[in-house]
Amino acid sequence: MQNVVNRRWLLKNYPDGMPSLENWTIDAQPVPDPGPGQILVKAKWLSVDPYMRGRMSPATNYTKGVRIGEVMQGGGVGEVVASNHPDWKTGDIAESMSFGWQEWSVLTPDIFGPAGVNKIDPKLAPIESSLSWLGMPGITAYFGLLEVGRPRPGETVVVSAASGAVGQLVGEIAKLAGCRAVAVAGDDNKLQWCREIGFDAAINYKKATDLTAAVKEACPEGVDVFFDNTAGPIHDAVMKNLSIGARVVICGRVALAGQFGQPDIGERFMGHLIVTRASIHGFLVFDWWHRRGEALKRLASWQRAGKIRFKEDVLGGIERMPEAFLRLLEGKNFGKQIVQIS
Amino acid sequence: MQNVVNRRWLLKNYPDGMPSLENWTIDAQPVPDPGPGQILVKAKWLSVDPYMRGRMSPATNYTKGVRIGEVMQGGGVGEVVASNHPDWKTGDIAESMSFGWQEWSVLTPDIFGPAGVNKIDPKLAPIESSLSWLGMPGITAYFGLLEVGRPRPGETVVVSAASGAVGQLVGEIAKLAGCRAVAVAGDDNKLQWCREIGFDAAINYKKATDLTAAVKEACPEGVDVFFDNTAGPIHDAVMKNLSIGARVVICGRVALAGQFGQPDIGERFMGHLIVTRASIHGFLVFDWWHRRGEALKRLASWQRAGKIRFKEDVLGGIERMPEAFLRLLEGKNFGKQIVQIS
Repeated sequence: MQNVVNRRWLLKNYPDGMPSLENWTIDAQPVPDPGPGQILVKAKWLSVDPYMRGRMSPATNYTKGVRIGEVMQGGGVGEVVASNHPDWKTGDIAESMSFGWQEWSVLTPDIFGPAGVNKIDPKLAPIESSLSWLGMPGITAYFGLLEVGRPRPGETVVVSAASGAVGQLVGEIAKLAGCRAVAVAGDDNKLQWCREIGFDAAINYKKATDLTAAVKEACPEGVDVFFDNTAGPIHDAVMKNLSIGARVVICGRVALAGQFGQPDIGERFMGHLIVTRASIHGFLVFDWWHRRGEALKRLASWQRAGKIRFKEDVLGGIERMPEAFLRLLEGKNFGKQIVQIS
Repeated sequence: MQNVVNRRWLLKNYPDGMPSLENWTIDAQPVPDPGPGQILVKAKWLSVDPYMRGRMSPATNYTKGVRIGEVMQGGGVGEVVASNHPDWKTGDIAESMSFGWQEWSVLTPDIFGPAGVNKIDPKLAPIESSLSWLGMPGITAYFGLLEVGRPRPGETVVVSAASGAVGQLVGEIAKLAGCRAVAVAGDDNKLQWCREIGFDAAINYKKATDLTAAVKEACPEGVDVFFDNTAGPIHDAVMKNLSIGARVVICGRVALAGQFGQPDIGERFMGHLIVTRASIHGFLVFDWWHRRGEALKRLASWQRAGKIRFKEDVLGGIERMPEAFLRLLEGKNFGKQIVQIS
């Protein structure tokens, strides 16, 4: 496709703390041809997610980061334009976390696991759902809450970043599991939405003068499951309100995006853990990828039955990728942040 | 028993930080008579354990503390001298965590659970074992390691306060479970003993210039199970060396005895937890009390088979109870600290 241009966002340098628009540069290259066993996909939608902050680092965390000059990593969904793979044909819809921040992507369907390619049925849901409630964030909420948090009916589940991609679903699944769901977010409109989709209580952490007291008021019998997407002061306030036997799921640390790579200094809660016999669990969705189909099937059935609703925050154009990502890190998005490319 | 004197250690005031001899006062009262359903026991051995620091507080933690003027709480074992209970007779050996720091105690055998009274078979082992490897510390090591730490053969288990009452047994049980056991303690003699009872490696945390590096050297494939009895700098160093899927058992915080009630400020390891998908578990032995018999049966059989050995540190006389306890908090004991009373 030598006559067609592929605009790509390359990592220009590693941020020290909070990323800024200066960390990337956009270029334009001819659209590449797919090799043997590969497919060429034109992006319809691209995703921005908090995990990308971790990839903007020379360090290897659970997986290696983006190198300087490489295309920024990220998931997307689009239409197959050329195929050298027997299972894929032109017009198929392909979703992959290997897309990258670019308009066109050459993907390898036979890769197994999270870097692989999934065929999307456009009749099941709008295809961009495969980046949100019917994709990685949905799988994250499903297994993080149900398998790691293990909520029991009647328990209280607190969710930080509750109006975000994962948070909305955690609250809704908690309700389906018979729990009381408590939202924490930093904006009254977001919290109003959380109430609409079923959260029983809502805490605006930016308005609370005493966040620990606010959590206690919202959770008078203590917090049984804490689904933590943020770290930071919300983490601290909830940790002081754990019930006996509580489970804390550490899913993300978006509040610390500006101090990535720095030690997170503050109060440790080991005494609280002994007294409450609570547990803290680091969670990575890719450990559950072999059960992805189970989560998606359940999420789709809940959505068809009207039991889950989901808000997306849409920007348009490949040129807005960095802006979309920064909005996310700064909590300015309202719902799952996605970008419409074509 | 109006003519016999019972010397008792009463809490005089609450310590601010590390306890001192000034926190208790000894008195002498007539030995009380047992009421209906009760027994009178003459102490042979009393125990001092790190949990007692938590009881020297007006706060309620997992259970309420000692009030000013009350007898200091603690476990003991002794001989029944009078009985108003059909199942107990003079000469029986009774062990209880309700003994208190005193020479004579009136106990209520029908209390269920940790505050209850256990009949000890003096033919099975020296009766003071019921305060150490064949009692609460042994049960702690057994369930804390096997049920919470869940070690698998070939894994590396790191134990802090490794020559202490719980630590020795954790290392020995880890070896029986097919693991590599690594001892952390602050004295070369203690570590030599740890080696003798089977630990594969030993770290003197007081001598290490870089404790994180020392843990890494001793655990080149990472730490799979961390049995933490101390908190503090040892905790920090081990947390930075967790392997994928590691389990951290928070059993005690003896290194923080001097800052009890103060927030424990330092590095939180939530990012490490996500990257390693590790988990941290607050542990309290009393949650496992209903399975106490199972642990004791297994520990006894291991001991009979020569598979576990255990060191005790013995002081003599009721007057030395505070001294024995402070030795423990300061890490000056070598093995389980107990006090012979009569």
